[in-house]
Amino acid sequence: MIVVMKSGTPEGEIARISEELSSWGLKVEKSVGKHKIVLGLVGNTAELDPFRVQELSPWIEQVVRVEQPFKRVSREFRHGEPSEVVVSTPNGFVPFGEHHPLVTIAGPCSVENEEMIVYTAQRVKAAGAKFLRGGAYKPRTSPYAFQGHGESALNLLIAARDATGLGIITEVMDTADLEKVAAVADIVQVGARNMQNFPLLKKVGAQDKPVFLKRGMSATIEEWLMAAEYIMAAGNPNVILCERGIRGFDRQYARNTLDLSVIPVLRSLTHLPIAIDPSHGTGKAEYVPSMAMAAIAAGTDSLMIEVHPNPAKALSDGPQSLTPERFDSLMQELAVVGKAMNRWTK
Amino acid sequence: MIVVMKSGTPEGEIARISEELSSWGLKVEKSVGKHKIVLGLVGNTAELDPFRVQELSPWIEQVVRVEQPFKRVSREFRHGEPSEVVVSTPNGFVPFGEHHPLVTIAGPCSVENEEMIVYTAQRVKAAGAKFLRGGAYKPRTSPYAFQGHGESALNLLIAARDATGLGIITEVMDTADLEKVAAVADIVQVGARNMQNFPLLKKVGAQDKPVFLKRGMSATIEEWLMAAEYIMAAGNPNVILCERGIRGFDRQYARNTLDLSVIPVLRSLTHLPIAIDPSHGTGKAEYVPSMAMAAIAAGTDSLMIEVHPNPAKALSDGPQSLTPERFDSLMQELAVVGKAMNRWTK
Amino acid sequence: MIVVMKSGTPEGEIARISEELSSWGLKVEKSVGKHKIVLGLVGNTAELDPFRVQELSPWIEQVVRVEQPFKRVSREFRHGEPSEVVVSTPNGFVPFGEHHPLVTIAGPCSVENEEMIVYTAQRVKAAGAKFLRGGAYKPRTSPYAFQGHGESALNLLIAARDATGLGIITEVMDTADLEKVAAVADIVQVGARNMQNFPLLKKVGAQDKPVFLKRGMSATIEEWLMAAEYIMAAGNPNVILCERGIRGFDRQYARNTLDLSVIPVLRSLTHLPIAIDPSHGTGKAEYVPSMAMAAIAAGTDSLMIEVHPNPAKALSDGPQSLTPERFDSLMQELAVVGKAMNRWTK
Amino acid sequence: MIVVMKSGTPEGEIARISEELSSWGLKVEKSVGKHKIVLGLVGNTAELDPFRVQELSPWIEQVVRVEQPFKRVSREFRHGEPSEVVVSTPNGFVPFGEHHPLVTIAGPCSVENEEMIVYTAQRVKAAGAKFLRGGAYKPRTSPYAFQGHGESALNLLIAARDATGLGIITEVMDTADLEKVAAVADIVQVGARNMQNFPLLKKVGAQDKPVFLKRGMSATIEEWLMAAEYIMAAGNPNVILCERGIRGFDRQYARNTLDLSVIPVLRSLTHLPIAIDPSHGTGKAEYVPSMAMAAIAAGTDSLMIEVHPNPAKALSDGPQSLTPERFDSLMQELAVVGKAMNRWTK
Repeated sequence: MIVVMKSGTPEGEIARISEELSSWGLKVEKSVGKHKIVLGLVGNTAELDPFRVQELSPWIEQVVRVEQPFKRVSREFRHGEPSEVVVSTPNGFVPFGEHHPLVTIAGPCSVENEEMIVYTAQRVKAAGAKFLRGGAYKPRTSPYAFQGHGESALNLLIAARDATGLGIITEVMDTADLEKVAAVADIVQVGARNMQNFPLLKKVGAQDKPVFLKRGMSATIEEWLMAAEYIMAAGNPNVILCERGIRGFDRQYARNTLDLSVIPVLRSLTHLPIAIDPSHGTGKAEYVPSMAMAAIAAGTDSLMIEVHPNPAKALSDGPQSLTPERFDSLMQELAVVGKAMNRWTK
Repeated sequence: MIVVMKSGTPEGEIARISEELSSWGLKVEKSVGKHKIVLGLVGNTAELDPFRVQELSPWIEQVVRVEQPFKRVSREFRHGEPSEVVVSTPNGFVPFGEHHPLVTIAGPCSVENEEMIVYTAQRVKAAGAKFLRGGAYKPRTSPYAFQGHGESALNLLIAARDATGLGIITEVMDTADLEKVAAVADIVQVGARNMQNFPLLKKVGAQDKPVFLKRGMSATIEEWLMAAEYIMAAGNPNVILCERGIRGFDRQYARNTLDLSVIPVLRSLTHLPIAIDPSHGTGKAEYVPSMAMAAIAAGTDSLMIEVHPNPAKALSDGPQSLTPERFDSLMQELAVVGKAMNRWTK
Repeated sequence: MIVVMKSGTPEGEIARISEELSSWGLKVEKSVGKHKIVLGLVGNTAELDPFRVQELSPWIEQVVRVEQPFKRVSREFRHGEPSEVVVSTPNGFVPFGEHHPLVTIAGPCSVENEEMIVYTAQRVKAAGAKFLRGGAYKPRTSPYAFQGHGESALNLLIAARDATGLGIITEVMDTADLEKVAAVADIVQVGARNMQNFPLLKKVGAQDKPVFLKRGMSATIEEWLMAAEYIMAAGNPNVILCERGIRGFDRQYARNTLDLSVIPVLRSLTHLPIAIDPSHGTGKAEYVPSMAMAAIAAGTDSLMIEVHPNPAKALSDGPQSLTPERFDSLMQELAVVGKAMNRWTK
Repeated sequence: MIVVMKSGTPEGEIARISEELSSWGLKVEKSVGKHKIVLGLVGNTAELDPFRVQELSPWIEQVVRVEQPFKRVSREFRHGEPSEVVVSTPNGFVPFGEHHPLVTIAGPCSVENEEMIVYTAQRVKAAGAKFLRGGAYKPRTSPYAFQGHGESALNLLIAARDATGLGIITEVMDTADLEKVAAVADIVQVGARNMQNFPLLKKVGAQDKPVFLKRGMSATIEEWLMAAEYIMAAGNPNVILCERGIRGFDRQYARNTLDLSVIPVLRSLTHLPIAIDPSHGTGKAEYVPSMAMAAIAAGTDSLMIEVHPNPAKALSDGPQSLTPERFDSLMQELAVVGKAMNRWTK
């Protein structure tokens, strides 16, 4: 962090500020120029609020953070190398990462009954998906909307895994449910609305299953990486970052604004694998295919796509779900781009 | 909900759609005009996704929600009358509501130690506040930042209440902590990051203490009211809605965009009391006074203001905290507008 | 501007960068600390893009602007004193500024015919307004919507001024119309959509009438001040800054988000007078009164309010217009707050 | 447009409203259901403000627009067929459109001098571009920044065209300059800041050169299409829509949020060709390649990419410009995806 002093700051004031900053455990390094004096702060500045420093003196012109506030998630933490998150599934280990083929996750928004979840699992597996998504606990805007079947749905996910060998990814919304969810899931999802549910982040960080961390609706890149940092700081290095559309000023056609530029941005900042969810990202099935194509061309490591055997009757998020037939044909279209990008499983 | 059919829709298709909608438990009311046929859906449409109806047929031109999705929080639910949330404190009952004097809540972001919290409580009480705010559990962007003293801080809040008779408002972040927090707090706060933490909303709705529900950073008015609906649907009618600044495109000077227009908007939509937090709303102490003045003139029922004995040394949110001295003088300035508006305690 | 070099940067690289920066006309001031070297750039850095400096070398860790990019509009430019914009009207000089009573501007969105504009002028004058607003040239989203009566409407504004002595404020949208508009207007308005119409800014800056500069829908404070800087740099010091609502993510109830926090923010950054337009700011007549009250309490120097004799028949912006009767009663309500704030004409 | 009446509305009130609406030139079609009465409005409702209808009576529950406000730009206007914009260049006719190969436009932000513009033109032509971009008139946030060489730069663009045969695209900012710009340009660009400069839209609509219409920074899809409607309504059918990044809440890494979902959204709404500008869309050269790849995979008809022989010395927008070398290699990467998508010139 750098503190720029106004010209004409008295020596005594600089001494006072330096002393105060030292008492915070920081090393203060003074650089004297002809017109300005600049104080460089060395130490654990990641947790320091620049505004707090600003308050120290009216002679301070500006305080500037020059460090990233995140550490473990940073690309530098792994010396520029990407990490891979390898997930164990009945069908074998599936690696997520920059040097691996694209991983497709597909399935319905909610687990509705055994027949539909097993059937959907079979269909998405046949089309090439490696993971089945399906919500047992569902975050819904309205208290009167279907809230998910909860614990019983977890058992249906087991049935679907048994039937297909697909890995299971499902969302946890409450710290109290984590144990049950993690017992079933191969990957535990933290949803957009919980991206800054810090008690939950700490708890998923303290267990072993990989975590699929969706970006909050209005989370900055930095806040998102800090949420991942919570998980890593708690001990779990296996985090996948998933963009699912951010809140914008125009929601008339697409429900959210899918921010694909996170792909090159995250690539330069972090070693963690990246996933894109074009289904939530646009909110409308007809926009999903072109955004899935775009995500692959931009370099995503994974795609999460909603598939429902009968979208018009889905208990949640029907409008953004593809039918199994459309998913089949989409996977063939994606293969063309995926192969061109050298990111498709042979 | 209204379904507009494209001109030329075959009779059979309309019959099929009507039948399907009836099977969803809805009454379908057909209105035949010269060019278009319009289907009115009567029944529990609050939980119905318009997109889901749209999917029923390519002959559907548009589906339009004409009902509000919220019920218990709506102004109509109380036949146009405002509700009052009356909170018991050692100093007596304090009512929040449109027909009552403005209630001021003040105190530090975090409870740091007994001396500071008791001293702050005494100062804000002397200045006219009725409630002390203070965080025991703190949501922090960084895992390396001060996370609040937790349970031990709850005891310090008791000490501050004992010393002053002020009511206590403090935040709960995890369903697992609710019992402990509610045992101490006179009002339980749900923070902006948890506005759509649905398990938490259900749990605060199932206990007795009034709930202070902050608006999420990018929550629409409707989503905010639906969050309050969760609490009321779970049995707790005592909800206060607090605007604390929304996320905007310009964060260079003010950290958030304080959306004061929620005051007239909420007034027309809901019976619930309204609070404004200009400290988080702007993120900078120097902007707090004029925004507090504005909130009173716009008709807020309550103000929440951060006060810290030594903002530059605050463990969190120092830059937006007022000193006790500045809070004293501010309360005198607020009294002028408050009296002009007939919202000030005699 | 400050350039922070990565630790370990070779001496030669620093010399090379310094030389390059000098060749751009900047003075480079090197500050050597124990771990980092910081280059301070002195000179005309207002027009320097920090990213352009960043590109100079991979050894540059960060480039930080520590100067404001605006000069003439800055509060420092007038040594901390506010400016006043004094406008000549038939009824006498009317000053806008921090040390003057609040100035109310009122009138219809568009000038529709002589009777309506003269009648409206008489009514708003009687209620206490000092200026009549009324559009001759109207920016409309649709090419099929009423575009204003243009030049002939300018003559009707003259008639309204003759009848009442009120000052006239009207919008210019095209450099080609400026001469005609400025011949009639006492204040020339640049609308939100033209805030970054730089040829227009230069031209209104090169003529004598005061300029009412509305904030662009998604303009940052800095961009807004830079637009004012264009006008001042072209020679016209008489600029009034008007907030009229910014674009947000929730437009279901209020059309725009009225950002009242600009009042304290602008007060600290610029000497220019501030106006608030709650009519466009909310888009709905019923929200206008409380936002007008709030604006006064927050310290605005001026209010612009839409008044139309028959809002339901207005050719544009009817929903946000007050009737003359409502405007009468509103002015009495505003007087209560205005007097409490010592900003009301005796 | 549909007007839903509250239950219990008196017959007389419905008659009064219907009469009023008829006097506006609309045909009113009443549909009587058991609980509600719905009025369908037929006629020129495109220019009707729903709020204005709402104001007619307190018995109106809701007014809903069911028509798109745009006509000529709509896909229906061409019976579902895409249009093609064919541009004459010295090297021959170049068609933009859904059934044609992708068209690449490249070049510097500003025309700086003859050598640089001719050299850049030669390089981008060699790499496969069909058009040269280059600004003569530049919209700049600061009045102190380089404003473009204006008229003299137009002559340099002619030189570059003569040297290479590339088509020229350059921006017009002022109606007063249109004649000069259109005399030189093969395509006239209207920039993001002028997307709602309606006098300019009318004038570019009244001349013959194709128009490249950039999306405004916070323009909704509908507002953007209405801007194109202005041009078409004035007589010019040759409009290309270019997404260049919208304003979002996070500008720390990418300057704007490139909204690639406009590709499927526009495809379903309009027949007009679509272009993507990943250079302005992200603001940083290193993010350009992956976003260009994504745009092709999503189905764009055209790409506009900034190329500068020496980005670090560019007079404007250097940070987002590619070097000619990087552009060469990028075009080869793009060819791989372009061929996979069948959108690459053989």
